[in-house]
Amino acid sequence: MPDRVYNFSPGPATLPVEVLQQAAIDIVNYNNKGIGLIEMSHRSKDFMAITVEAENLIRELLNVPQNYQVLFLQGGASTQFAMVPMNLLGPGKKGSYLNTGVWAKKAIKEANIVASAQVAYSSEGSKYDHVPADGDYTVDPAAEYLYFVSNNTIYGTQFHTMPKSDKMLVCDMSSDIMSRPFDITPFGLVFAGAQKNIGPAGATLVIVREDLLDRVAETVPTMFRYKTHAEKGSMFNTPPCFAIYTIGLVCKWLKKIGGVPAIEKINREKAAILYEAIDSMDFYRGHARKDSRSLMNVTFNLPTPELEARFVQEGAKRGLDGLKGHRSIGGIRASIYNAFPKQGVIDLVAFMKEFAKSA
Amino acid sequence: MPDRVYNFSPGPATLPVEVLQQAAIDIVNYNNKGIGLIEMSHRSKDFMAITVEAENLIRELLNVPQNYQVLFLQGGASTQFAMVPMNLLGPGKKGSYLNTGVWAKKAIKEANIVASAQVAYSSEGSKYDHVPADGDYTVDPAAEYLYFVSNNTIYGTQFHTMPKSDKMLVCDMSSDIMSRPFDITPFGLVFAGAQKNIGPAGATLVIVREDLLDRVAETVPTMFRYKTHAEKGSMFNTPPCFAIYTIGLVCKWLKKIGGVPAIEKINREKAAILYEAIDSMDFYRGHARKDSRSLMNVTFNLPTPELEARFVQEGAKRGLDGLKGHRSIGGIRASIYNAFPKQGVIDLVAFMKEFAKSA
Repeated sequence: MPDRVYNFSPGPATLPVEVLQQAAIDIVNYNNKGIGLIEMSHRSKDFMAITVEAENLIRELLNVPQNYQVLFLQGGASTQFAMVPMNLLGPGKKGSYLNTGVWAKKAIKEANIVASAQVAYSSEGSKYDHVPADGDYTVDPAAEYLYFVSNNTIYGTQFHTMPKSDKMLVCDMSSDIMSRPFDITPFGLVFAGAQKNIGPAGATLVIVREDLLDRVAETVPTMFRYKTHAEKGSMFNTPPCFAIYTIGLVCKWLKKIGGVPAIEKINREKAAILYEAIDSMDFYRGHARKDSRSLMNVTFNLPTPELEARFVQEGAKRGLDGLKGHRSIGGIRASIYNAFPKQGVIDLVAFMKEFAKSA
Repeated sequence: MPDRVYNFSPGPATLPVEVLQQAAIDIVNYNNKGIGLIEMSHRSKDFMAITVEAENLIRELLNVPQNYQVLFLQGGASTQFAMVPMNLLGPGKKGSYLNTGVWAKKAIKEANIVASAQVAYSSEGSKYDHVPADGDYTVDPAAEYLYFVSNNTIYGTQFHTMPKSDKMLVCDMSSDIMSRPFDITPFGLVFAGAQKNIGPAGATLVIVREDLLDRVAETVPTMFRYKTHAEKGSMFNTPPCFAIYTIGLVCKWLKKIGGVPAIEKINREKAAILYEAIDSMDFYRGHARKDSRSLMNVTFNLPTPELEARFVQEGAKRGLDGLKGHRSIGGIRASIYNAFPKQGVIDLVAFMKEFAKSA
């Protein structure tokens, strides 16, 4: 077993090793203050400073203007599926949704519980192997927003450019936030579970335009209103302190290596190496359509499920861990988020070549 | 500065140092597997085993029968204030509440948003300085449950025995769970934010009787139904992995030192030392009525706010940290949860004696 495996897990996912090492120190004795990070009151000066710093780094890295609030919530993307329509729609109102995978479909289900969803496009019929282009769908004029999932982990698809719409955009960016620059101004709201690109499980980043905060009705429980958290700087109640702290460390790491443009370049390099390998061997077959291929999750099949099982097993023996595809489409999935090292991709390709020859 | 301060913070609060040290190792390299704990997929065998072990330890330590589900959720007690009535009441139904502090009052507010709350008792008029005895209130016969907060951190009050009622009990045990044995069978549901007695911020423990899971209406968003999480062993979506892991470590520590009966004995000793000091000096005045005094949070006042401020400051200089009372009642609060060392209480009493003399 090597010191450190290459962890292709789709999330929780690999983190920069220097982040883990710093967390290990601070958990026992934060800044040499004789108190562990996870024992500190969230109202202490030290922890408040950690939260403010994490927020500021996110603003800087994603170029978030002051008319957006940056919130650290709990409950993951699945909670946002309900909170978005609870806050932005309410009974009788409608959101337009692009159904590009299971996570989009779950969001549609929740929107229909608390309000109404128009499904403007669905790629379900082709096993979600692509995302639509702008001309492929029509947004209901009565819709309040256009909702989409920028990257679909299970299928390995990604919007190469953000949809253009006269409606404000709402986006689940859980699996590709901070992987490439984007202009946030067409967005009303962006959310992301932390556990892929920006930290550990346990915190959900929500970036929401301030003027939308007042839309929520008094019939929505206090904790499920963005406004509640915005008014208290994410400190209405005890926040997920450790996850916020770790997000801050990941952001510092990202800033140090050059920020989002720099990591995009690396992400493109990593993905290109892997897709080139898939395309150059008949043995492997990519799941996603080429025009929708993801830089974060690379999905492919081998000739048989038996070979796929052997591939996963033999890969794990070599320290290439977590390559099994999602049960809904099978095959192989290599998740290569921001913190995944390029050498791991090179090693995977070497293994793919050997495996194809020997099989 | 000593190696480790005595951390009287009301939560997040002090944890056993051996728990912190183990977490520091596992975060970088879990069980020497070449992968950090917070990078592991929540669906991996290793993490599933962590979750099952944590659940089993909770069942063992609290003697939870098989007809109760043990869930790890997110969003803290504040989310439970809404989830409890969303799941157990619904429109037109009523819960009975004992208003013994701000946290009870907040729960009442949320119950009135989604259903209806009868306030059977309130100690608000006397700055929440006590909790009621069974004969002090009458529960509405139409109520589905009797809701109470077993320990009120801000005021330092605690139910010395659990209320007796022909209604099922629902309890916010955030600040005294696992501090003393109790019989769970009269309870329909018990919840607790982890960040006081059982772990770090970021997870909420919910123990709910199985037959109650089906009460929830389809109009409740999926994530806010206990049933959703119960059916998937708290893995409907990515759970707060690090917090669950740490809860497991804290439970192991507690089991090792003799379990809940053993820690109760220690808690009684610690509280007795502190209350005796308060009662033996005219200089200090306890906030809570003697029949309601908490074993977890000891609240008291000095002759003037100026002296209280100096007390907090000088205490901090000696490594007695986090003694400032909640802004709503002022004064001093010493939170001495399960993991708080007895020596810290002894040192605090020594400081109190000196301070009273010199002031």
